[in-house]
Amino acid sequence: MVKALVFDAYGTLFDVHSVRDECNRWFPDKGEAISQTWRDKQLNYFFLRQLTERYKPFDQVTKEALRYACKANEATLTSEAEDALMEAYRNLELFDEVEEVLSVLGDKRLVVFSNGSPTMIDPLIQRSNISGYIDEVLSADEVKQYKPVPAAYSYAQQALGLEKEDILFMSSNPWDITGASSYGFRTAWINRNGLPKEELDIQPEVEYDSLSGLLEWKNS
Amino acid sequence: MVKALVFDAYGTLFDVHSVRDECNRWFPDKGEAISQTWRDKQLNYFFLRQLTERYKPFDQVTKEALRYACKANEATLTSEAEDALMEAYRNLELFDEVEEVLSVLGDKRLVVFSNGSPTMIDPLIQRSNISGYIDEVLSADEVKQYKPVPAAYSYAQQALGLEKEDILFMSSNPWDITGASSYGFRTAWINRNGLPKEELDIQPEVEYDSLSGLLEWKNS
Repeated sequence: MVKALVFDAYGTLFDVHSVRDECNRWFPDKGEAISQTWRDKQLNYFFLRQLTERYKPFDQVTKEALRYACKANEATLTSEAEDALMEAYRNLELFDEVEEVLSVLGDKRLVVFSNGSPTMIDPLIQRSNISGYIDEVLSADEVKQYKPVPAAYSYAQQALGLEKEDILFMSSNPWDITGASSYGFRTAWINRNGLPKEELDIQPEVEYDSLSGLLEWKNS
Repeated sequence: MVKALVFDAYGTLFDVHSVRDECNRWFPDKGEAISQTWRDKQLNYFFLRQLTERYKPFDQVTKEALRYACKANEATLTSEAEDALMEAYRNLELFDEVEEVLSVLGDKRLVVFSNGSPTMIDPLIQRSNISGYIDEVLSADEVKQYKPVPAAYSYAQQALGLEKEDILFMSSNPWDITGASSYGFRTAWINRNGLPKEELDIQPEVEYDSLSGLLEWKNS
């Protein structure tokens, strides 16, 4: 029996590419490209900083990735634009089905577990329509390590005070699902982008194309 | 005074995208896309396996990345094609200037240091025109860790028996240069693709657009 439903935030509950409009406002016609490079570089920097043991919090990494994305797309980032785009990252849009799905899961313990540091993830949740459904928000920043290292998932497990198999973890990010599965959580891959299955010796328990799949899981 | 010139192999001495022709032979018109996804996924899997503590040797990771790349590009990979493409990865082409540059650096200790496991990197070097110039080939597989973690560079340093500052490390891969710089090697980023400088608090000592820059460095 699963006792906690644990959700990744960025890309899973919230659409990181909903910054596209704000990007387009500052950099006409380059919003799509900048948003894509921003996210790719952000993930690259998480991995790289973890591997080289140079941890910095999510907000700094996200800012550095934004600066890189603008350079890579030949856009000049003023400090005004930087502030506005970082603020947009605290106001990302929920994916369409999220609010409805969470509203019917109220009998479960609902948790967000993110690499986002509190200055980024807390306002994002609080300002959203799902804040009333979320029982806890956990940040890997607490242990200064990023998912997908085992120490990050271990922190979440300790914070929840549950056995690994009591936890169902959901993420759209393949690397996050691999990390959580490898650590020992039960996992549901929310494969929003229709990506191929990873060619790895560790796989999620189930795969859905949106969080709506959870309703099916709940009733199974 | 630098005592050893240490070169990354894949992307730095050898063009990983020289498999494009072999990819096109098996998958007409998809060679470019498959080659690109193959390399991207290979790097992704190195990072992910290191972070989740699931080390496997380079040949297995490269094969898994190839399988993913074919799925992602809707190409059916027969075992015959897989063998041929893996063999192509042991016959990558040198970048144009490499042979000439190495030929005039004969007074230095010339070393290759790669994530490639011996079954992949050894034949690649031996069959190439630079085998006569290379004094040693070191593989991070020896310590079952991939660059860019400190333990990988530490292994290379121990194997060379030199102080960190006696070693000039060269790579075209930004993550590799970040890792080596962070560990304490002297570093030259061979920025073959004209990428923007990383937005990180650690930077290479010098940057060149090809290995020919080394001749300038040698005379400085």
